[in-house]
Amino acid sequence: MRRIVTLLTDFGTADAYVAALKGVLLSLAPEALPVDVSHEVAPGDIEGAAFLLAAALPAFPPAAIHVAVVDPGVGSARRILAIETEHGTVLAPDNGLGTHLFPGSARVLMVDRPDLYRVAPGATFHGRDRFAPLAAFLANGGEPASLGPAVADPVRLPIPPPHREGDELHGRVAHIDRYGNLVTDLPTAWLEGELIEARIGNHFTNRFATHYAALAPIEAAVIPGSLGTLELAVRDGSLAERWGVERGAGVVVLVE
Amino acid sequence: MRRIVTLLTDFGTADAYVAALKGVLLSLAPEALPVDVSHEVAPGDIEGAAFLLAAALPAFPPAAIHVAVVDPGVGSARRILAIETEHGTVLAPDNGLGTHLFPGSARVLMVDRPDLYRVAPGATFHGRDRFAPLAAFLANGGEPASLGPAVADPVRLPIPPPHREGDELHGRVAHIDRYGNLVTDLPTAWLEGELIEARIGNHFTNRFATHYAALAPIEAAVIPGSLGTLELAVRDGSLAERWGVERGAGVVVLVE
Amino acid sequence: MRRIVTLLTDFGTADAYVAALKGVLLSLAPEALPVDVSHEVAPGDIEGAAFLLAAALPAFPPAAIHVAVVDPGVGSARRILAIETEHGTVLAPDNGLGTHLFPGSARVLMVDRPDLYRVAPGATFHGRDRFAPLAAFLANGGEPASLGPAVADPVRLPIPPPHREGDELHGRVAHIDRYGNLVTDLPTAWLEGELIEARIGNHFTNRFATHYAALAPIEAAVIPGSLGTLELAVRDGSLAERWGVERGAGVVVLVE
Repeated sequence: MRRIVTLLTDFGTADAYVAALKGVLLSLAPEALPVDVSHEVAPGDIEGAAFLLAAALPAFPPAAIHVAVVDPGVGSARRILAIETEHGTVLAPDNGLGTHLFPGSARVLMVDRPDLYRVAPGATFHGRDRFAPLAAFLANGGEPASLGPAVADPVRLPIPPPHREGDELHGRVAHIDRYGNLVTDLPTAWLEGELIEARIGNHFTNRFATHYAALAPIEAAVIPGSLGTLELAVRDGSLAERWGVERGAGVVVLVE
Repeated sequence: MRRIVTLLTDFGTADAYVAALKGVLLSLAPEALPVDVSHEVAPGDIEGAAFLLAAALPAFPPAAIHVAVVDPGVGSARRILAIETEHGTVLAPDNGLGTHLFPGSARVLMVDRPDLYRVAPGATFHGRDRFAPLAAFLANGGEPASLGPAVADPVRLPIPPPHREGDELHGRVAHIDRYGNLVTDLPTAWLEGELIEARIGNHFTNRFATHYAALAPIEAAVIPGSLGTLELAVRDGSLAERWGVERGAGVVVLVE
Repeated sequence: MRRIVTLLTDFGTADAYVAALKGVLLSLAPEALPVDVSHEVAPGDIEGAAFLLAAALPAFPPAAIHVAVVDPGVGSARRILAIETEHGTVLAPDNGLGTHLFPGSARVLMVDRPDLYRVAPGATFHGRDRFAPLAAFLANGGEPASLGPAVADPVRLPIPPPHREGDELHGRVAHIDRYGNLVTDLPTAWLEGELIEARIGNHFTNRFATHYAALAPIEAAVIPGSLGTLELAVRDGSLAERWGVERGAGVVVLVE
């Protein structure tokens, strides 16, 4: 049976690292189908990768396997986790990559299967030497439960959750995408009444729209985004550039 | 049966958008094989994507499915087209993406299958919510003809076609590739006699060559390109940079 | 049987060139599985590609096929080689791409199969018109030996090999990766005693570590790399930038 194995790393695409990981995976699990999520995560940017992992997951079926390797602690005693979700099993270092997955019903296992690891030079490429063989094990029908015991204390990134104070929704810019759209962590479902205003620092808009083409060229607006959270965007160009906003900026939305 | 599904978007590769599209596709059509054309189209650059789509197509077999999503009108009333070609069925928004495919014998259908669409948050990601399920439908053996009625008025980009005036061939730079080669829309077959000169603005060359290595290092030349049209190129480096040429520039070729 | 076909080119990912190559491959060998090594090799950078090819290969099984097309001599009389290795058959122009593969037991053949080539416009895209059909031939079970006669004189890049002089190991920076790590050609196995010092130009370090997280933030160190050679790296950031080092720089390691 062909099994999807998604790959999310900070390896970039100019080196042979992604290919080496895939080569080991396909050597051990010839029927696996590698699917790239992204390899453009900034080196060591765990928060960025945690967002992308959570963003990609809902599109995948339960049998999928997800390998997420942004792993500045490679070679140290940091643990490897297997996180079972309704959209497949995630393999990731225990450094916060799974932060957005834990609140749900995910079961989290600490992987303890040195018998599966690849004997290889150096201790700096667990993507190839540990994660790829683990993914192959799952792709070949191995049971996640056999990877190791459940753990209750996976590392979580200290990201403050969004909250409501009366008519004010308080959140943050969780991600800035290629278009310069500001993807917030505010659930679209929280926007029950009418939008009064959305603010980031000194910038604000009172425009709501369901899609970009409804806007005038440089009009900023609040838009229900594709991940179920609110976005702030401008039709033509990057709102992140226009407003000078970076990831993590606070967002306040007033509703009536 | 494994079906090729090519993907051409302006999503970039730093976000999880491409993976989300592939995840939905593979969830619905597990035997599909996604093949990336490019995701580096500049945001909203329909003309650039139309070129790449036409450039990639001839390499693919009739059973291929091609998803092209450069879609600034996403969420609006813009139509979705299915374009049947001898190299497979193209799914694309009706915004000019298929411009270079229409002159042939392509049959163009207006997709009207809301029953296939994915229920999802927001109206901004039809790549994932509409194009992926449509591609899966075709990959699973669905008939293109069942997608909707034929249309006679697909949107065409206002790109002037090349023409001949006596010994002068008049065209334009249709694309600038990674090497800085200037890919024109002038059919190589039009170069029947001897090359006298090729001109772009104040720059010109009278050198003809069949391949780059035949040239001196910084010698510009006219070369029969891999798409059946003439290219202007320099052996080492980018002619686009050297001559300061951008896409759309007029090209005149004199033959004898 | 599904056969892995890896692809290493300088085509970039903004054009449709990679897709055209894959389209021809999959048209002729529908069960092939294309796997990208990299397409970000700088245009014409044969040395860079030769490194990546040798870096990727060990991860792949004997049945793999590897297409490497960094080919400034395309269209000229330069030969096409098939290089048989224990990790699969490499197809590449005879321009030095296989340099790091020849010292082993690799058998090198000169490909002479014009019957397999694709009739196509222009002589500038052998990746699509020759390498793809050749790879498809192998993927469909064709024998490498039937591609052409053995050759004894493949082109080799003039890269000086590393050497030992008493307690001094002399090598060079073979590659700089995305993280700015300096990958040397010095075999880790040569570091038998204790590290006294590693030097590149005026910069040096006497720190040895097995992994990055063992280091203080800006501490440079010698690390056994994932390819079996020594690396010089800094934990946070790019040592290449910090030290101003480029590929090819000489490295001296003193051991005791």
